Amino acid sequence: MYVGRFLVVGPDGGAYRVSSRSFPNREISVREDALTVGPTDDAPETDNPYVAYNCVRVVETPTGETAAFGNGSHVDPIAEKLELGYPARDALATSLLALDYEKDDYDTPRIAATVGDAGEAFVGTVREDALLVERVEEPTLVATYEMDTPEAFEFDASDAETAARSAYDLEFEHAVCAAGVARSEAGDGFETAIVNDD
Amino acid sequence: MYVGRFLVVGPDGGAYRVSSRSFPNREISVREDALTVGPTDDAPETDNPYVAYNCVRVVETPTGETAAFGNGSHVDPIAEKLELGYPARDALATSLLALDYEKDDYDTPRIAATVGDAGEAFVGTVREDALLVERVEEPTLVATYEMDTPEAFEFDASDAETAARSAYDLEFEHAVCAAGVARSEAGDGFETAIVNDD
Amino acid sequence: MYVGRFLVVGPDGGAYRVSSRSFPNREISVREDALTVGPTDDAPETDNPYVAYNCVRVVETPTGETAAFGNGSHVDPIAEKLELGYPARDALATSLLALDYEKDDYDTPRIAATVGDAGEAFVGTVREDALLVERVEEPTLVATYEMDTPEAFEFDASDAETAARSAYDLEFEHAVCAAGVARSEAGDGFETAIVNDD
Amino acid sequence: MYVGRFLVVGPDGGAYRVSSRSFPNREISVREDALTVGPTDDAPETDNPYVAYNCVRVVETPTGETAAFGNGSHVDPIAEKLELGYPARDALATSLLALDYEKDDYDTPRIAATVGDAGEAFVGTVREDALLVERVEEPTLVATYEMDTPEAFEFDASDAETAARSAYDLEFEHAVCAAGVARSEAGDGFETAIVNDD
Repeated sequence: MYVGRFLVVGPDGGAYRVSSRSFPNREISVREDALTVGPTDDAPETDNPYVAYNCVRVVETPTGETAAFGNGSHVDPIAEKLELGYPARDALATSLLALDYEKDDYDTPRIAATVGDAGEAFVGTVREDALLVERVEEPTLVATYEMDTPEAFEFDASDAETAARSAYDLEFEHAVCAAGVARSEAGDGFETAIVNDD
Repeated sequence: MYVGRFLVVGPDGGAYRVSSRSFPNREISVREDALTVGPTDDAPETDNPYVAYNCVRVVETPTGETAAFGNGSHVDPIAEKLELGYPARDALATSLLALDYEKDDYDTPRIAATVGDAGEAFVGTVREDALLVERVEEPTLVATYEMDTPEAFEFDASDAETAARSAYDLEFEHAVCAAGVARSEAGDGFETAIVNDD
Repeated sequence: MYVGRFLVVGPDGGAYRVSSRSFPNREISVREDALTVGPTDDAPETDNPYVAYNCVRVVETPTGETAAFGNGSHVDPIAEKLELGYPARDALATSLLALDYEKDDYDTPRIAATVGDAGEAFVGTVREDALLVERVEEPTLVATYEMDTPEAFEFDASDAETAARSAYDLEFEHAVCAAGVARSEAGDGFETAIVNDD
Repeated sequence: MYVGRFLVVGPDGGAYRVSSRSFPNREISVREDALTVGPTDDAPETDNPYVAYNCVRVVETPTGETAAFGNGSHVDPIAEKLELGYPARDALATSLLALDYEKDDYDTPRIAATVGDAGEAFVGTVREDALLVERVEEPTLVATYEMDTPEAFEFDASDAETAARSAYDLEFEHAVCAAGVARSEAGDGFETAIVNDD
């Protein structure tokens, strides 16, 4: 099954995976404070505005640290609203509603999630016909196609490496790259990990 | 089962019912352009800000007519955003998020729905842990307690009278009053109906 | 000159005054955590939805204490957004835009202000043709009519009593009642004061 | 004087100009339905997220045609909200507040404007300390620095060519490129024009 880009978020961590038929020549790299999806060196040029973006950001909030991740340019305003003090629910809802689904041939939804350091995790998506943001108590998946409403999904996000690898290896078609995020065992913030196509 | 206030919205109409343990002395009356929930003449005085509000409004939008209904003061900004031209999804999401759940002892959710004259219906709710707005293709119920996530629910909203009566008669406890709304058979807008406690 | 309801907000305090031709029989009273505008005992009944509301609220935020005040029901969501952690700019903008100007015969603007305990004050208004929210460094007035864009205005808000009395005594017509708010001299939060018609 | 990027919007048209000390190697080109700011062929590579964006878009709304322009990626959600039916005031306010000022070394404001085909024009900006959106009745300028509050400004936007050229030639320092937009004389939508560095 092809579900497009997807994420899984559980109480303590999560993962985001790029799956793509149209733009497979992409990879995730580490920038200051962010993991970034972008074209590989050998990718054909495109002016599609949806192929490069920060997919994971870890930010300081007034009350702790929060990781935000998702499938597009909305990850930045979500992270920035968290830094300003918005609760996760409101940072997700505001940013998803403002940027809305992608204006491509498929009305591709935007998806996003947050994990806070007090154990609160949220998932969100905006579709042409819906805006859904909710707290999750167990691992939850949402994808851009087919599985486009958040649903419980068995997943191991106990550490970032495992989360990224598990997401990359899931049976869904056209895996390109994946990122994992998890609260660090030492309890002081978040660790991240990347899996790029070999 | 006590589910508190609830609404059902289907493609062509819907109903809203007040169920209440704390403030049963209420009724729905007709005001210009709105159905209004308020205390009966013999109700004890209260300064609770959540007992009186417009529960149904029918408004002209730039592209037709839409009915909006719900369990509190958010029905007015939803109706007004529809008049300004906001799509139903956005009118619901913006108003629910801004007014948020009721700051009472139960963090009671706000619930709302819209029916457009082109056959589009939406349901929405805001809870302490979620903001959920989505298009519905079949009758869908959402309540303030227990059934606080929208779910499919068999319901006859073919005319306003039937919708109001059906909602009032549902087995959920502590019925106080109900309003129904349906696209008129003549196809020119909406009709409404009221059932108050006998 | 009749400027309708107005407020003045300076770096350390402010005041809100009800001026009214249509509903002069009103007073401000103290409720738990709020100052509330409402009809006097001898006021004629009205179903105008804009005459009774919390005009001042002092709330705990994640980083301190903030006072919010204004001319209508938007003061509650502004206060609640501040409690959730929204910065003042965003709490004002979100709530004013969602509730919008009053849908009366004059398209009366909503006005509001905040004073934080770190010395930050903001003013905001939403009109049919504008949404204006900005930090103020000196006493600033905004009214519902005539002076409906925030402007610098000499005013003494050094303590709550003085602020309320000064606002009540200003030459603008049809004074009904006024509330003052100021950071307490002890530096631990805010004090409030009320002046009602004699 | 260096005011950075700026725009002028009058009742019937307007212009946007890129002024830049850091990224002068840029030009405006025509894409389907948009004018786009991007690097010239000889520009050094950068991963600054704020140098390439659609600066002008003309969209169909439910009630006519509207031109939107501004200094960054917020022009897209503004245009898309207009297409959905949001009034200009709300499309500007929602998108500016969600994307907020640029998170660079200068907290550079986002600026934007709209011109509708019924003669309504709006200007907006979001700064670290303000969100300002208002209808304009006469040509009005707002810039990212120094002149960062909208102010009346004599300007000829009677046709797109003149508007673009006038903006480019204004005495403000470090002109890079400019775009103009005006209601077409035939009254059927908008014309646009571009001036790039020679």
